[in-house]
Amino acid sequence: MHAVRALLLRHAARVVSVTLAEQRGDPRVAEIQALAQKAGKPVKRVPPATFKQLFGDAVHQGVCVDVTPLPAWHEEELVAAIAARLEAKDAPFVLVLDGVQDPHNLGACLRTADACGALAVVIPKDRAVQLNATVRKVAAGAAETTPLAVVTNLARTLRLLKEAGLWIVGADADAPKLAHETDLKGPVALVMGAEGAGLRQLTRDTCDFLVRLPQAGTVESLNVSVATGMLMYEAQRQRLTAK
Amino acid sequence: MHAVRALLLRHAARVVSVTLAEQRGDPRVAEIQALAQKAGKPVKRVPPATFKQLFGDAVHQGVCVDVTPLPAWHEEELVAAIAARLEAKDAPFVLVLDGVQDPHNLGACLRTADACGALAVVIPKDRAVQLNATVRKVAAGAAETTPLAVVTNLARTLRLLKEAGLWIVGADADAPKLAHETDLKGPVALVMGAEGAGLRQLTRDTCDFLVRLPQAGTVESLNVSVATGMLMYEAQRQRLTAK
Repeated sequence: MHAVRALLLRHAARVVSVTLAEQRGDPRVAEIQALAQKAGKPVKRVPPATFKQLFGDAVHQGVCVDVTPLPAWHEEELVAAIAARLEAKDAPFVLVLDGVQDPHNLGACLRTADACGALAVVIPKDRAVQLNATVRKVAAGAAETTPLAVVTNLARTLRLLKEAGLWIVGADADAPKLAHETDLKGPVALVMGAEGAGLRQLTRDTCDFLVRLPQAGTVESLNVSVATGMLMYEAQRQRLTAK
Repeated sequence: MHAVRALLLRHAARVVSVTLAEQRGDPRVAEIQALAQKAGKPVKRVPPATFKQLFGDAVHQGVCVDVTPLPAWHEEELVAAIAARLEAKDAPFVLVLDGVQDPHNLGACLRTADACGALAVVIPKDRAVQLNATVRKVAAGAAETTPLAVVTNLARTLRLLKEAGLWIVGADADAPKLAHETDLKGPVALVMGAEGAGLRQLTRDTCDFLVRLPQAGTVESLNVSVATGMLMYEAQRQRLTAK
């Protein structure tokens, strides 16, 4: 419901139609229906059994939206969006995932990037999981709202981002400085490595700074989607504290 | 390998034996073998095919450890451990999960709790996922090192933790204060709600403070394991900054 409501509120132009399972008394469903009608989108109400036939065994809350997919960005769109934000004096931040393999991790990172207000998420075209049904589902709607840029050469893209005015900050367990000891308030790209493997050498060499997260325990490495959440939280915290 | 190495280094007494698939040249396997031998634990080397027969289709790195399970804690052990830490002037923090349903989320929270140095993780016995094979796997070894306290009445346990000297801090999207505006440096229990539903009313009423995480995006709610990571990161950051 969250994701459908958000799509209708913020990206109504991309909504084609809404299908609702007939169920009484849920005010959230009534709100979604009202939002869709206000936006001039067709709303179809069907019996719960028909809804199940239409959408199979997917876990749902009786709400389905047909939406034009968000097109993947190319480098040019990414660079143009960064320039627009910088011109508006609104320091953008971009999340870069260097070879994440697990669709649950990519989905969770997209969801967190959306919640933290990231401008876009960048992934390499090869040797990394791509946007698929599992990713979309785990992202809980964020895949339809946060632009994903898929690039062929990540090191080249990082250099482009640098030229566009971003600081490139990589997460590395051996970095001398902790994230909170580093200024993340400006325009930054936060770069996370793959599960287990971390940043590739070429990616690491392209970073302006490396930072690490505090760790005290036995297991020694955090899940990549949790580590991404911590680093994006820290960037957000610094921005809020600076205001 | 991480988890087995950590177990041998920190909890060797609980290791029964180690089985290794014969493979050449990995220095991490050699280190694990040396650690096991130093601790006087039997090490068995078997051909990769035998290893696969023994342990089936589990994803592994050719390393298996037979370990005495960490017994679940009762309230008394939790309270005693808190008292010991307070006496040592080492402000403990405890993670409380109020009804998490998904084994991946519980496993990820255990892993993060371990990485952040939490004293223990508390879950209710009913209407919440319990420690099972999926949880142990996702926890990547943390289920064998971070004590899990399973309690019958969460509100009563929170009152006991309060009497033991902890501040009870609940995460709530509607809280007036942000996490970084609240002092988390002292002895605290961080309380997270279930996926979607958040804190139950009785749990919320038992908290000393409520805090929220900054959110800017469309999706509006973070995954519970990512939100837990952010809040535990914030507690750790404050502790490091205070030193």
